[in-house]
Amino acid sequence: MTTDRKIELFVPAITPFAGDLSLDTARLVVHGRALLEAGAHGLAPFGTTSEANSLTLAERMGALEALIEGGVPPDRLIPGTGCCAAGDTIALSDHAAQLGCRGVLMLPPFYYKGVSQDGVFAAFAQVIEAVAARRGDGFRVYLYHIPQMSGVPITLPLIERLIAAYPGVIAGLKDSSGSWESTAAFIAGFPQIDIYSASEAMIPDNVAAGGAGCISASSNVNARGIRALIDGLDGPDHDALHAQVAAVRRLFEGLPLIPAIKAAVAAQHGDAAFATVRPPFVLTGPDHAGAIAEAVRLAGPQW
Amino acid sequence: MTTDRKIELFVPAITPFAGDLSLDTARLVVHGRALLEAGAHGLAPFGTTSEANSLTLAERMGALEALIEGGVPPDRLIPGTGCCAAGDTIALSDHAAQLGCRGVLMLPPFYYKGVSQDGVFAAFAQVIEAVAARRGDGFRVYLYHIPQMSGVPITLPLIERLIAAYPGVIAGLKDSSGSWESTAAFIAGFPQIDIYSASEAMIPDNVAAGGAGCISASSNVNARGIRALIDGLDGPDHDALHAQVAAVRRLFEGLPLIPAIKAAVAAQHGDAAFATVRPPFVLTGPDHAGAIAEAVRLAGPQW
Repeated sequence: MTTDRKIELFVPAITPFAGDLSLDTARLVVHGRALLEAGAHGLAPFGTTSEANSLTLAERMGALEALIEGGVPPDRLIPGTGCCAAGDTIALSDHAAQLGCRGVLMLPPFYYKGVSQDGVFAAFAQVIEAVAARRGDGFRVYLYHIPQMSGVPITLPLIERLIAAYPGVIAGLKDSSGSWESTAAFIAGFPQIDIYSASEAMIPDNVAAGGAGCISASSNVNARGIRALIDGLDGPDHDALHAQVAAVRRLFEGLPLIPAIKAAVAAQHGDAAFATVRPPFVLTGPDHAGAIAEAVRLAGPQW
Repeated sequence: MTTDRKIELFVPAITPFAGDLSLDTARLVVHGRALLEAGAHGLAPFGTTSEANSLTLAERMGALEALIEGGVPPDRLIPGTGCCAAGDTIALSDHAAQLGCRGVLMLPPFYYKGVSQDGVFAAFAQVIEAVAARRGDGFRVYLYHIPQMSGVPITLPLIERLIAAYPGVIAGLKDSSGSWESTAAFIAGFPQIDIYSASEAMIPDNVAAGGAGCISASSNVNARGIRALIDGLDGPDHDALHAQVAAVRRLFEGLPLIPAIKAAVAAQHGDAAFATVRPPFVLTGPDHAGAIAEAVRLAGPQW
């Protein structure tokens, strides 16, 4: 396969917490830097896997600043900024733009369900116009489609309308629906923006269709393997590389995803503190230990 | 019917916005005072009907202070405080407790779906312990069950566990599920706390079963009628009073609820500004005008 588009892995980095559940920015920086060294093209922190919606605005801003001060280049960061309240989404998006981030990954407002397309469009428009007014042409939005959590889908007509209204701003979309048919429709409909799959197992199909790569929870554990697959898509080891990333990913299916990813990351860093989660999550239990250990083994050394 | 429990109407007051979508605290105070004068026992502002999740923390705190400074007694206020992030829920709950509010109406953290009962319990426990540590014995929590929006139900075993752990704190529950079977199970299971229906049409059943009354969106439009029903539950006009509140409520079914409630309130105040909504809501259209006008007519003069 060949493509002119750059194929990338952005990692939705987990957010470490201290024993008292306060934000642990030191470990966040350690993990973020390790992911880049393992081959990730960038980080998409403060998404679902990052427990971003369990963080206050001040915590999210402080953590983003810590990553940049800790050596993660802002042009390799696409932080999540979509909140329920437009005022919060604007504050986070403006902060990220001000810091020079490549773009922001934006959920629709997600409390109210069954809202109209006009209303969801107006919600995105309100944020984009407010941030663009302050930050000018550099503001880039990646739409975040994760209907099983948000309850508010990013539909094809909505994307069409947003691209028409804000052609330079809408830069991409992360499809976390888990459906390849959904991703294929996004790629076919909007070749002018970057469409990321939420599963590394879909990378070959994503790239063959014209997509841009993946933003995957399990890339916290297997960034090295996923980068190897991206680099080897046209090479002789393609099948083995694809089998490796799919096997690691498969081990997390059926586990409580975010606690299990954090437990695996803790094992990889040799530092149990990385496993800490905030409510409403709970630590993984003994039933999950075997699958997590096997995922770590299959992923191999990362850093 | 007879009951020792005080039967009450708490109105989830709409939140007015100015033309630029900024918070309009002056109109909020006008409406809040009018509702009390119309017979509401209190207000439960900053819930679903209030577009609370479209407000920033600073807006919510400022609006609550404005209500109190504007003459609404804090012991007649049960503001909504449940956010996705515990830090935000703690900040709002502590602020409300500090101001002397009767209690707070608390959503579970609602971004993550399919979380465990242990995790939801831990989320409530984290907030209750943080606020109780600062505010002492006076802190009261009303649990907010609205699974069609939150995606995270308040289950019977969760309530049992919360009451056992925090017996003086868990004061009640608002059941917005729309299911009478659900409300009946809450009342039967937990007679020691106040169970509110989200529909005034259920008040007779709610009270007969041992419930505490209602917290209903449409009470923004018909507080006077609902209060008359509560006062007349044992009287000769019961059936007519019940028919009136049910008829007003029925007119909102099939309409976009929150915009329609706001449009009706605007008509009642003779002030179109009350109809303004924030995205993701949009103003009601011409198709809805007839039903809204009829609801206003059936509700009759309120203030």
